[in-house]
Amino acid sequence: MLERFKVPANEQVHVAEESLRHTVTTIFERVGLSRTDAMESADVLVTADLRGVESHGVSNMLRRYVEFYQNEVLNPLGELTVISDTPSAATVDADRALGITVGRRAMEIAVDKARKTGVGAVTMFNSGHMGALGHYAMIAVQNNMIGFSSTAAGTGVVPTFASEPRFGTNPFAFAAPTRHKAPILFDVATTAVAGNKLELARRLKASLLPGWIAELDGTPITQETEARGKDEYYQLPIGGSRESGSHKGYGLALMVEVLGSLLSGSKSGMIKDESDWIGSKSFFTAYNIEAFTNMDEFMTNIDEMLEHLTETKPSPGNKRVLYPGLIEHEEFQKRVIEGIPLHTEVIDWFDQITKELSVDPLELIKP
Amino acid sequence: MLERFKVPANEQVHVAEESLRHTVTTIFERVGLSRTDAMESADVLVTADLRGVESHGVSNMLRRYVEFYQNEVLNPLGELTVISDTPSAATVDADRALGITVGRRAMEIAVDKARKTGVGAVTMFNSGHMGALGHYAMIAVQNNMIGFSSTAAGTGVVPTFASEPRFGTNPFAFAAPTRHKAPILFDVATTAVAGNKLELARRLKASLLPGWIAELDGTPITQETEARGKDEYYQLPIGGSRESGSHKGYGLALMVEVLGSLLSGSKSGMIKDESDWIGSKSFFTAYNIEAFTNMDEFMTNIDEMLEHLTETKPSPGNKRVLYPGLIEHEEFQKRVIEGIPLHTEVIDWFDQITKELSVDPLELIKP
Repeated sequence: MLERFKVPANEQVHVAEESLRHTVTTIFERVGLSRTDAMESADVLVTADLRGVESHGVSNMLRRYVEFYQNEVLNPLGELTVISDTPSAATVDADRALGITVGRRAMEIAVDKARKTGVGAVTMFNSGHMGALGHYAMIAVQNNMIGFSSTAAGTGVVPTFASEPRFGTNPFAFAAPTRHKAPILFDVATTAVAGNKLELARRLKASLLPGWIAELDGTPITQETEARGKDEYYQLPIGGSRESGSHKGYGLALMVEVLGSLLSGSKSGMIKDESDWIGSKSFFTAYNIEAFTNMDEFMTNIDEMLEHLTETKPSPGNKRVLYPGLIEHEEFQKRVIEGIPLHTEVIDWFDQITKELSVDPLELIKP
Repeated sequence: MLERFKVPANEQVHVAEESLRHTVTTIFERVGLSRTDAMESADVLVTADLRGVESHGVSNMLRRYVEFYQNEVLNPLGELTVISDTPSAATVDADRALGITVGRRAMEIAVDKARKTGVGAVTMFNSGHMGALGHYAMIAVQNNMIGFSSTAAGTGVVPTFASEPRFGTNPFAFAAPTRHKAPILFDVATTAVAGNKLELARRLKASLLPGWIAELDGTPITQETEARGKDEYYQLPIGGSRESGSHKGYGLALMVEVLGSLLSGSKSGMIKDESDWIGSKSFFTAYNIEAFTNMDEFMTNIDEMLEHLTETKPSPGNKRVLYPGLIEHEEFQKRVIEGIPLHTEVIDWFDQITKELSVDPLELIKP
C-alpha cells in the first residue's frame, strides 16, 4: 500500500488479533448471524487487517455491514443454493447473505470440483459485499491449488471515453502456492485505485494521484488533487486515461462483469431494474496443480522464480524488488505478534457500537 | 489502436484477403509446413490483419517466422503431445511447432473438456510465437463459450522497482459470445504497450508515450520520448511507474507466467538454463456457458449490456464509447471488402521473399 494510506503513528491504537476476532465475532452474532457464520465473517475481516490491507479490514467495512443488517438489506441467515451443477462448474444463489460469510463455501465447491476433474469454477450471485477478494483465492492455495476470484459490484467507474459510470471497481485476485516463499497473492481492483482507498484517503486527508478519479462529466483528472466526497467524482479504470492505458482497466472490469454477472444468469449491474438491490456477483476458480504437472517440480520452480525476482537488483532510488503478496505476508507475521493498528476514529466507533449492541468493549493493547 | 500506429495513407498498398491468404499459405508450405498447418497458420496472421491488429499480422510476424524455420529454431512438422490429461485439465508439449500453427488444437482440447464437464483448461509449453492471443479465446466464442488465453514468452519487461528485465510482454485475451453485437474480445499485453507496437512505432517514426519504456537501469521514462532500437530500452508493465499502478501490470505478468510456465511443468522464462530456447508457454481456458446458466438469457443480457455501453454519452472531446473487440469487428467487415492496407516496406519484403522461395508474387489491388 502507498504510504499515504497508512494510519499515521500518532493516531494508532493497537489491538491483539484475538481481541479483535472476539469482538467482531460477537458483533456479527448480535446482528443475527450463527456462531459459525460470525466466526467465518470475522476471519475474513481480521485476516485483511493482519495482512495490512486496512482498506478491507474492520475499519472501513464492519460499520457498513452492521448497518446493512440493521436496515435488513442483508439476510443474516442466508444460505447458498446450488442452481446449476456439472462436474467442473456450478452457479450458486447467495440468498442475500454477506459475501464474506458465504464466499468460502463457494470457493470450496470450486476446490472440490478441481480435486475431482482438474479445474472447478463457481459463479455466485445475490450476495452482499465480498471484502478482500484475495481471501477466496487463498482458500485454493491452502488446498495446494491455484486460485482466482473476482467480484462485479456497484456502478461508480466510468469506461474509457464515457461520461457516465457503468462498472463497479470489479476487483479480482490470483493466488498460487509455494514451498517456502510467501505465496503469490495478487489482489487488485480494476480501477486505478481501490474504492475503499479513496475513503481512507479522505479520512487521512491524503491527496489523490493523477488518473485516479474523473470529473462528473467523465473527464479524467490528470493532476494530483484533493480527496473529495463520494458524490463529487467517478472512479477511473486502471490506466486512468486512454493514452495511459485505461482501455486495459476497462477490459478487465468488463471481464469481471461477464464472469460474475452474466455467467451467473444475472443482468449486468449497470442495467437498472425494478429492485434497487444489485448485490455482488462473484466468480471463483480453482486449478488443481497435480492435474497439470508434478507438484514437487512446480514448488521447486515457483520458489526459484520468486527468489530470482526478490534478488533482482532494484532500480535507482528503490530498496528492493517485491512480488504481490510478499509485503502482506511479512506484515501478517509482524501483526500476529505486535497487534493490529487501528485509527482512533475506528476505536471510537467500536466504543459506540459495542455499547449499542451490549457487547463487551474492544480490548486494546496497553501502550 | 492509437493513431500513431496506423500505416500512413500515402504508404499503404491494399491487398485482398484471399491473395494474402494464398501467398502466406504458400510461403509456410515452402518452409516445410503441411498444407493444413500452413493454412491454419496463415489464418491466424490474416485474421489479425483483417481485424486491424497490424502489430500481429503479416507485417511484423511473417518475416520472423520464416527466419526461425530457415534457422531451424522451429520444427515445421511439430505436433502436440498430451503429457497430462484429466476430465477438465491437460498439459501439452508443442514440439517446437510455431504457436500459431498448434494453438487452435490446444484451445480445442479445452473446448472439448468444457463441453463435457463445464470448464476446460490446457497449458502448453515448447511452442514458438503465438501471434495474436485473442485468436484462441475466439475459438471458444465460435463454440458459444467464454474463452481465455495467455502466453508467457521472453524477458524484456522490468518488474516494478527492478533494474533488470524478468518477464515477457505476457499477453492475455478474454472473449465472450453475443447474439447480435460484436463479440467481446479483450486482447492485451500486460505491458504498457505491446512489444510489436514499439517495433511498429520505430518503422512509422512515431514517438512513445510516458510510462511505456524504461532506461536500461530500470528507471521508468515518464516523458514522451522517441522510439529507440531494441537494445536501448526495457519495457514497462501496464501502469508504467509504481505510482501510476505498474504493480498491477507486474502482477498480471506474473499470473500469466504461473499459468503458462509453471503450471505446464516448465521453469519461468527468467531462469536461464543450458538451452537458449525458451519458447512460448501458453494457457487456454474455455467456460461452457450452458453449464452455468441458460444460454438464451445470457445472450439477451450480454447484448443488452453492450448496447447500454455503446449508447453511453461520451465524455467531452470523445466521439463514442467503445468496448474491447468492437472496433476490430468493424474493421474486419470493412477490410473483407476493401482489402488489407500494408506498408510499402512490407510489400518490398514480400517481393524479396517470394522470389527467394520461388513463390508467385503477392497480388496487389490496383489503385
